[in-house]
Amino acid sequence: VLGDLAGNRARAAKAIERAAAAGADLIVLPELAISGYAFADRDEARRLAEPIDGPTVTGWCELSARLGVVIVGGLCELDGTLHNAAVVIDGGELACTYRKTHRWDREQLIFEPGERPPPVVETSAGRLGVAVCYDAFFPEVMRDLALRGAELIAVPMNSPVIGEPLRPLAAEAVLAIAAAHVNRVFVVQCDRAGVERGIAWAQASVIVDPAGSLLAGPQAGEQVLSAACELTLARDKSLGDRNDVFADRRPDLYGAGAALIPTTKEHL
Amino acid sequence: VLGDLAGNRARAAKAIERAAAAGADLIVLPELAISGYAFADRDEARRLAEPIDGPTVTGWCELSARLGVVIVGGLCELDGTLHNAAVVIDGGELACTYRKTHRWDREQLIFEPGERPPPVVETSAGRLGVAVCYDAFFPEVMRDLALRGAELIAVPMNSPVIGEPLRPLAAEAVLAIAAAHVNRVFVVQCDRAGVERGIAWAQASVIVDPAGSLLAGPQAGEQVLSAACELTLARDKSLGDRNDVFADRRPDLYGAGAALIPTTKEHL
Repeated sequence: VLGDLAGNRARAAKAIERAAAAGADLIVLPELAISGYAFADRDEARRLAEPIDGPTVTGWCELSARLGVVIVGGLCELDGTLHNAAVVIDGGELACTYRKTHRWDREQLIFEPGERPPPVVETSAGRLGVAVCYDAFFPEVMRDLALRGAELIAVPMNSPVIGEPLRPLAAEAVLAIAAAHVNRVFVVQCDRAGVERGIAWAQASVIVDPAGSLLAGPQAGEQVLSAACELTLARDKSLGDRNDVFADRRPDLYGAGAALIPTTKEHL
Repeated sequence: VLGDLAGNRARAAKAIERAAAAGADLIVLPELAISGYAFADRDEARRLAEPIDGPTVTGWCELSARLGVVIVGGLCELDGTLHNAAVVIDGGELACTYRKTHRWDREQLIFEPGERPPPVVETSAGRLGVAVCYDAFFPEVMRDLALRGAELIAVPMNSPVIGEPLRPLAAEAVLAIAAAHVNRVFVVQCDRAGVERGIAWAQASVIVDPAGSLLAGPQAGEQVLSAACELTLARDKSLGDRNDVFADRRPDLYGAGAALIPTTKEHL
């Protein structure tokens, strides 16, 4: 619920409690899980933002310690400037903050982009990569997280439906499956349900295994999706008797295109 | 039909005639369309191989000239060594030969890998990229073809079913959709149907538009799939009002992982 900070913290806490009670070791929440997404402007975002040591992360740390779970979730971070941030919390402590590097649409009017790559973090629930929503539309991001050893990529998401949804799977689900399959990693993507200020969400929450099989989702509506993920499977990049999706790369042949186009663009 | 060179040339010619009669400007055939795929060994492959100026390409050039179509197809090339090759034929002339750079499974026992990147070729049917089967499992390949200006990526394929097929879409179809969507290009993938020496094919022939929408396929069985593709759409990389899938890339942040793992591997 856009702007209902206390209510959203309580809803997230309840979902975390429910997932932990069902046996979850790792819990992934949406992007901007506490503030909502569709800010009218920077002022509104600023009023709904908080520092990393504010009540949201403090609350998640308390839950992580008490329930023995790793939590990955998004929040609207204020640190002088505004950032679309995600945190990884493990053993009651903040393990990592990441500021989204690929800004979607009006996020460009509100947030400063992150200047550090999506992180890979060693946690008690495994070696996790983090990408936020539009980050995951860049296959370079998912490949790089996997090459750096991520066994599972957590993707907090608030993905608006743009035009006709793809059939039989939303684009966001297709991309999660593709990233899992080509990198032999788990992908755990937590999207939004419902509608916010006229934006319908793609509801593309999925849990995908390293073969690309959907272990859970996508399903319409608010819910907790869960699945057993044996993360050691993601350390094996072999495919059949003679292939290995990492070793078979030919980086000597890639990148000819990279020099051909501008790599920055001013939209604002 | 493995080894039936004359029969396969006639079948391919018939399919080309049929597609041209239906109005096709560009026709994509499978990988190793004339020899078959599941060679017992290098000797058998050598007996079914031919030089680039052999009867297959000569026949396709004749068809291209007579019907006014661009043809992309795969063949077993003998040039001293064996190559899993694909050709682009335009206006009755060979426009490009490509030797597959990512070898799947027993191809490693039979073919020498190509040492030049998948090509982008200006043709009378548009600016085409070419990748062969397992090449397309490397998002770097598809990205690089798109960055180099490919409006449509043609993917001759012979993709064996490995384990349980993904649901609701085969992995090969998922990857084609993902590549089209993230690169805003058309993908035209021509896979095999049926079974060859115990190998069941994924039947993942698809035509995908730059939004990732399936214009045709996948469907079981032997067939000609066709769709109208307005290639100029693939020149527009913008997404909504403020995004551009190429300009939004952050190459300054990618590639940290590339140095961490070996890039070559000897399986043989």
